[in-house]
Amino acid sequence: MTNYKLTLCYDGSRYKGWQRQGNTDGTIQEKLESLLSRVLEQPIELAASGRTDAGVHARAQVCSFKAETGLPPEALLQALRRHLPEDIGALSLEIAPPRFHARLSCKGKTYVYRIWNSAEPDVFQRRYRVRVPEPLDLNAMRRAAALLCGQHDYAAFCTARPGKKSTVRQLRSIMIEEEENELRLVFSGDGFLYNMVRILTGTLLEVGAGRLTPELMPGILASKDRGLAGPTAPPQGLFLWEVEY
Amino acid sequence: MTNYKLTLCYDGSRYKGWQRQGNTDGTIQEKLESLLSRVLEQPIELAASGRTDAGVHARAQVCSFKAETGLPPEALLQALRRHLPEDIGALSLEIAPPRFHARLSCKGKTYVYRIWNSAEPDVFQRRYRVRVPEPLDLNAMRRAAALLCGQHDYAAFCTARPGKKSTVRQLRSIMIEEEENELRLVFSGDGFLYNMVRILTGTLLEVGAGRLTPELMPGILASKDRGLAGPTAPPQGLFLWEVEY
Repeated sequence: MTNYKLTLCYDGSRYKGWQRQGNTDGTIQEKLESLLSRVLEQPIELAASGRTDAGVHARAQVCSFKAETGLPPEALLQALRRHLPEDIGALSLEIAPPRFHARLSCKGKTYVYRIWNSAEPDVFQRRYRVRVPEPLDLNAMRRAAALLCGQHDYAAFCTARPGKKSTVRQLRSIMIEEEENELRLVFSGDGFLYNMVRILTGTLLEVGAGRLTPELMPGILASKDRGLAGPTAPPQGLFLWEVEY
Repeated sequence: MTNYKLTLCYDGSRYKGWQRQGNTDGTIQEKLESLLSRVLEQPIELAASGRTDAGVHARAQVCSFKAETGLPPEALLQALRRHLPEDIGALSLEIAPPRFHARLSCKGKTYVYRIWNSAEPDVFQRRYRVRVPEPLDLNAMRRAAALLCGQHDYAAFCTARPGKKSTVRQLRSIMIEEEENELRLVFSGDGFLYNMVRILTGTLLEVGAGRLTPELMPGILASKDRGLAGPTAPPQGLFLWEVEY
């Protein structure tokens, strides 16, 4: 069996997220697994670095899979590119060490949330940015962002899932970059909880609009109460940007 | 009657082009005229700088219309923005001199044709660029472009339309800009014939691929034979970029 590392980009607009839910279910995993299984003529199971929600994009999602094949990676990559729909792109495919696993070997991730901060229309990037017409106080957002980083229990900043897994994570940095009318919130950490980046973004936007203050952040973290953080920002501004191994 | 100048951007993907063909016909003109007529409670007729084909985009299309209204332009612009679909944006609206007419007053136009020149997938810009995976000889394309500029009869570079209008135009410049894997062909001239930019682009791509040579250009122009020029490049790479008055 050969172990492969596949790097993908995708426009999540028309998918129900990464994770397979059934057989013909409109998820990206299902699309890719059935394509790879057809091309390689054997059942293929994909592991990804993590799931992305419905409507969330990936600039670079990493997956791994094992297959019994003599096809060189370059030929398999070309075959994939011929068959993939135009909203999923295969960026690279390489043979990985036998123990490499896209999720278990992952050391960290970067997500980017893109905001169009203007009253002007945003016609050509509307699927990849969220429009926030009100002026935002970037200084307050940066102060709040600094208070949200570190190693914390992020229970207040995630959507609860059944099971009692730890909600402690190490959030290394949140950078807020501005380029003309676009704002980019760049989140780097060892791992992220369900909806965590979107809830952090929704909270930072509340701070930017003056409806929350940076000083409230430590208390919200300590409360572990999802009700105290801001709303979950919409999916279309979010990109899985980079996965580290 | 007040005369207005309206500047629009639009994603042409789902429209049958600018020009109205009937009453509920999926054209941009029809969409805007019915919206303006409703907002201003009077029948509004729009003149644009020119029509754009089905699938062609506008970074800045200019229109004019006359209306009997006391609404200040800023209020009308806000009303338009509230009602426009997300693939049409109102960039500005101002009161124009009484004799201003978007088509008749137009002094020149710039179109940009965007090409993704790479074998890599182009997921996020796929609606706004045309993918050309083969390597292109930009020097040959630039030599051909220079030979196509000037004042010429462009009958070989347009799709014939009924009527015997002049096919002589002044093509001021064709610039070929390269940025990473994106190629931009920038066409400036006093006016353009039906499909002219797309046929010029299709011809320049044939030169880039080595299937035509720059030296053939003067003969193709002189022939006035559409059959000798290259194919009509697809619409989604084309943007009406700027209109001069």
